[in-house]
Amino acid sequence: MIAIWTAIREGSNAYLKRQFRTIAIIAIIISLVIVAAFGATVNFTYGSEIALSFLLGVAFSLFAAYVALYSATNANVRSTAAAEKSTYEALKVATLGGGALGLVVISMSLLGLSILYAVFGDPGVLAGFGFGASLAALFAQLGGGIFTKSADVGADLVGKVEENFPEDDPRNPAAIADNVGDNVGDEAGRGADLFESLTAENLGGMIIGLIVSVILFKGIATATVYYVTMPLIVRSLGIVATFVGLAVAIYEKKFKNPIKPTRDGLLVASVVVAVLMFVASWYIFGPSGLTPNGQALTAYALYGCMLSGLAAGLLIVIYTEFYTGSNAKPVVTIAERSKSGPALTVMSGTAVGMISSGLPVITVAVALLVSFFLGEQFAGLIGLNSFLGGVYGTTMAAMGMLSTAGIVLTMDGLGPIVDNAGGIAEMSGAPEVIRERIEPLDALGNTTKALTKGYAMGSAALASLLLFQAFVLEVARYQLKIFDLKLITIDQADLLGNSVQTLGTFLALNRVDVVVGALIGAMLPFVFSGTAINAVSVGAYRMVEEVRRQLREIPGLREGTAKPNYAAAVDISTKTALRLMVVPGAIPVIAPIVVGVFLGWAAVGALVVGATISAIPLAIMMMWGGAAMDNAKKYVEMGHFGGKNTETHAATVVGDTVGDPWKDTAGPSLHILIKLLNTISLVFIPLFLSAIIIFH
Amino acid sequence: MIAIWTAIREGSNAYLKRQFRTIAIIAIIISLVIVAAFGATVNFTYGSEIALSFLLGVAFSLFAAYVALYSATNANVRSTAAAEKSTYEALKVATLGGGALGLVVISMSLLGLSILYAVFGDPGVLAGFGFGASLAALFAQLGGGIFTKSADVGADLVGKVEENFPEDDPRNPAAIADNVGDNVGDEAGRGADLFESLTAENLGGMIIGLIVSVILFKGIATATVYYVTMPLIVRSLGIVATFVGLAVAIYEKKFKNPIKPTRDGLLVASVVVAVLMFVASWYIFGPSGLTPNGQALTAYALYGCMLSGLAAGLLIVIYTEFYTGSNAKPVVTIAERSKSGPALTVMSGTAVGMISSGLPVITVAVALLVSFFLGEQFAGLIGLNSFLGGVYGTTMAAMGMLSTAGIVLTMDGLGPIVDNAGGIAEMSGAPEVIRERIEPLDALGNTTKALTKGYAMGSAALASLLLFQAFVLEVARYQLKIFDLKLITIDQADLLGNSVQTLGTFLALNRVDVVVGALIGAMLPFVFSGTAINAVSVGAYRMVEEVRRQLREIPGLREGTAKPNYAAAVDISTKTALRLMVVPGAIPVIAPIVVGVFLGWAAVGALVVGATISAIPLAIMMMWGGAAMDNAKKYVEMGHFGGKNTETHAATVVGDTVGDPWKDTAGPSLHILIKLLNTISLVFIPLFLSAIIIFH
Repeated sequence: MIAIWTAIREGSNAYLKRQFRTIAIIAIIISLVIVAAFGATVNFTYGSEIALSFLLGVAFSLFAAYVALYSATNANVRSTAAAEKSTYEALKVATLGGGALGLVVISMSLLGLSILYAVFGDPGVLAGFGFGASLAALFAQLGGGIFTKSADVGADLVGKVEENFPEDDPRNPAAIADNVGDNVGDEAGRGADLFESLTAENLGGMIIGLIVSVILFKGIATATVYYVTMPLIVRSLGIVATFVGLAVAIYEKKFKNPIKPTRDGLLVASVVVAVLMFVASWYIFGPSGLTPNGQALTAYALYGCMLSGLAAGLLIVIYTEFYTGSNAKPVVTIAERSKSGPALTVMSGTAVGMISSGLPVITVAVALLVSFFLGEQFAGLIGLNSFLGGVYGTTMAAMGMLSTAGIVLTMDGLGPIVDNAGGIAEMSGAPEVIRERIEPLDALGNTTKALTKGYAMGSAALASLLLFQAFVLEVARYQLKIFDLKLITIDQADLLGNSVQTLGTFLALNRVDVVVGALIGAMLPFVFSGTAINAVSVGAYRMVEEVRRQLREIPGLREGTAKPNYAAAVDISTKTALRLMVVPGAIPVIAPIVVGVFLGWAAVGALVVGATISAIPLAIMMMWGGAAMDNAKKYVEMGHFGGKNTETHAATVVGDTVGDPWKDTAGPSLHILIKLLNTISLVFIPLFLSAIIIFH
Repeated sequence: MIAIWTAIREGSNAYLKRQFRTIAIIAIIISLVIVAAFGATVNFTYGSEIALSFLLGVAFSLFAAYVALYSATNANVRSTAAAEKSTYEALKVATLGGGALGLVVISMSLLGLSILYAVFGDPGVLAGFGFGASLAALFAQLGGGIFTKSADVGADLVGKVEENFPEDDPRNPAAIADNVGDNVGDEAGRGADLFESLTAENLGGMIIGLIVSVILFKGIATATVYYVTMPLIVRSLGIVATFVGLAVAIYEKKFKNPIKPTRDGLLVASVVVAVLMFVASWYIFGPSGLTPNGQALTAYALYGCMLSGLAAGLLIVIYTEFYTGSNAKPVVTIAERSKSGPALTVMSGTAVGMISSGLPVITVAVALLVSFFLGEQFAGLIGLNSFLGGVYGTTMAAMGMLSTAGIVLTMDGLGPIVDNAGGIAEMSGAPEVIRERIEPLDALGNTTKALTKGYAMGSAALASLLLFQAFVLEVARYQLKIFDLKLITIDQADLLGNSVQTLGTFLALNRVDVVVGALIGAMLPFVFSGTAINAVSVGAYRMVEEVRRQLREIPGLREGTAKPNYAAAVDISTKTALRLMVVPGAIPVIAPIVVGVFLGWAAVGALVVGATISAIPLAIMMMWGGAAMDNAKKYVEMGHFGGKNTETHAATVVGDTVGDPWKDTAGPSLHILIKLLNTISLVFIPLFLSAIIIFH
């Protein structure tokens, strides 16, 4: 076990180091662009602060990737070993490993943003940090995703389909690459990804809290700080709830379905955080709370916003089960239609993915409407501008949805750990009993991964729309040349409040620049996903050629008497990933800057909204469609419709493979894409304010 | 030949009759809803006029479907017979058959709208006609598309893949159903579809022309009529150019690639229409033209708008060739990767489809920007409101793009005719020489179909954005309660002009109702496509079961000594199509009404724009991705990578089948979907103006 584990860990670390170097070079170039752009439009000092904060965001994001990898590569082998005792012990180790990841990542995001807010108190600097986090995460997720799926698909296409090797067979030359991929894609990529999500979401809430409260209270007042830190407070309460949830999750020793403990953990954590949020809302916005004019009704209103977000998040988790769960009706239908061949598998899988985008979108829409409405009531009660109150209400909804992030991240981190534990058991030739105990956990990993991806997309939708509101507020601030909010005067605060209203005129959908921005924005997720899927198909194709070559040229490999050249396979994945992640990664950086320089800030804002609204259904289609096809394969493997080694099973394997880059490369990168578009547009506002072509 | 032809024609007519009945019932219900909605909000007379015009639209649309079917089912067998002489003669018959379809459909659209404008002169009544046309077309295209692809996929999955029958083998029980499908899907469906497209596009132009000119000239002046009829004038010039193009297309007797004559026809028609448009622009908007304040510069400006549209349309045709042409690089790459199995075929095909959405979207965006800008200049020159001038400029761009519609429709109509000609030759056991002469035409049909679908989507994008502008103008009109434009006063015209400007505020992207509308709108094309693809997969699955059953139960069928039960197969396609077209068809009717009743007109407007911007890349992904996989299969069949009867070929067959409902059912329905959303929102404005929840 230790030998296999060392090989995986060393391979993962080696890849990560090369990936970090590539990302670092890109980050340094961009930071110079930031300094130059701000030097030309505002001043060098401000530009340097933002560039610094950007680099800090990149560093934190990469560190999160490293922490995730570290905790996973240490938990995986321990989970295998723990299976000597029981399935429960193996699950416990994996759950705690996932929990460590979740808690560290959340805390790092809180730490980074708190420090920056304490030192600078400036939304531009905070946005720089978010931009850095998103940029690094996009490359980490893309690179890792391309690596892991090239290896996985390549390993399966020759190993499983042509040679009939079982999963993780040591004779398969791509076997180590596949397991390395699980780590660098699902763990390191996801670590950076989650850090980015949390940061972007906190950031949107903080910027809105800051500017809204500055306008409402005519400058920086004591009350302001609670509006700004409310997102951080809710997030901290989430950490407390996560501990309770984790305790519940590892308390249950007997279970039929291994998903039960974690699901119970999620439910308990949700109840706990729901109670804590009420307390926080009461003591901050209620009668004799820490903010002025508090009443019971105001506390209820904002608490209602949080609850609507919390409920929306839980509903999305339920929908995931409904569409992609192991025995879900759509999954069984896909498996059944596979009797007529792989074309019907993919056709039905695509249809399920597309249809399943309906409910989550409607749920997010309802949460937005309810929280905006309650926010308006809140504002009315304390005599403030109702539009800004509505916007703050949606902020609270986003925070409510994210309050359970800790436990969801635990579920997310758990998946690849048990995946790897299974791989290590298989490749090291561990006793049959260990393998049997780990197997049910493998299916668990698949379900939790699908659950958390849906949740990530839902929360990204809310976060992206928040960041867009923050963008409009920031445009108003830059237009009025208020570069230091601490020095804002009452007159300026009034001007800021008014100009937020009038800026709406420039964002009207019947304007040509807005429509063009939205049109281009809605297309970006498609081109981005296409290039990412193409990268996987290039990598997988090369991997297939390499595996076939080794099987042909190395005598005794098929019989197990000779060892394959694992390193050559790892090298192919590495090269493909590092080279082909650049184009899809560059799209979201270049597009908003080009559009903004030519057509101005309103077109960029529309681009971001266009990208968000088309990315949500596209991502759900790919993630849930892919997960449903994956589970249809597993359903057949459990013995339905003839079971393994039938035409039906072969058809579902094709469906699963088609879905691989959908659900693990392109799909989960899309939510980073939209937040990267958001943060990049926030950072470069000064540049967009001097656009070349202006429509009237 | 005549026996086979009769069977196909009778099957097609029988299906069409049942489909018409279903659509008629739906249409009558909706017309009652219109009368009720207007009765409650405006008055019964107006409601009845609109309902009448709606039913007229439905009738015209269905009549276009019938004409298309009639001309195709008469040209197909003649084309087969003409192949006795030469490939050229067969192509000539097919081209003229396609031309007849194109010209009749265009003329019908001109006729319907001209009559309604002459009689009522009211934009609401015109919108009703457009709504009827779109509704009937959506159901015709959906029903036909589900029918044809259920039969096609079912026939292929058993016939080609399992039994190794060639295409159109008379032993295949689904063979007749497949050929009937070509007629009811590709011909009748497309006929209604094209009629709808032309009508929606003319309609958008006319409404904008009407209201813009009423505002500009403070009431109905002589000038007005030219603004309104300019779209019709350009369309008529297109008919003239089509005749010239058709003459060119049938003039070339010798050609290597059968696409050359039609392509030359398209080029010549484009040049002719470019010249004619200049003449029209000069004599209407130029110095001493028919509208006031004409100058050389104003004529140039609007002519520039038309040219930008014309160029954009031609560019999209070129991109189609680039991504999906028989020897295009992406097609060859898909074929090459298929060496590693069907999963990589579909993966690469999806990637190509997604990536290919980039260029068309950017092209449409540039055309919009250029024409809006030129329109602003035009308005400035004659001292009018620059925003309305810009909107009129984009109208002219849309008309420019559509000026070549006649010849493009010819190409579109030609495809299924040669497809059917091939089928008839095969099934009737025509002499080898006839089949050899028809074969190259079959590949031509595929390419022209892909070309025209891209063009249809591009023009739909422009048309949809035009109709959205028309929607905003109409909202202003209904808000001011100007129900008869002929009686408008100068004061009202001024009020109308101002309120169009202020309405923009309600369409701001930072409003929650607008964002929610856009969010829901962007999801609709996905859910719609998913249900349509699912319908095909249900139908195909049933068809596979039926074909397998017949092969099992009818002795001698496989050997060709017994005849299959064709009617049973036709019946399965019919039932699936008529039952499963209802859900996807209902989505675009119900969604905007529900959103509008609850959230108001601005949310509906945003819904329409959201649906448009996400439908464009989704449709291109499906249409071009599907076409590229189809041609990858053909590329392998031409002998590359091992040719037929290899694993590589089997992989490309899977890819082709997955792409079938993408490119022939869901993809080409999407552009009708967005125009249906547009026209429905136009018609029901009075209802939306009394929304239940209003955000401030």
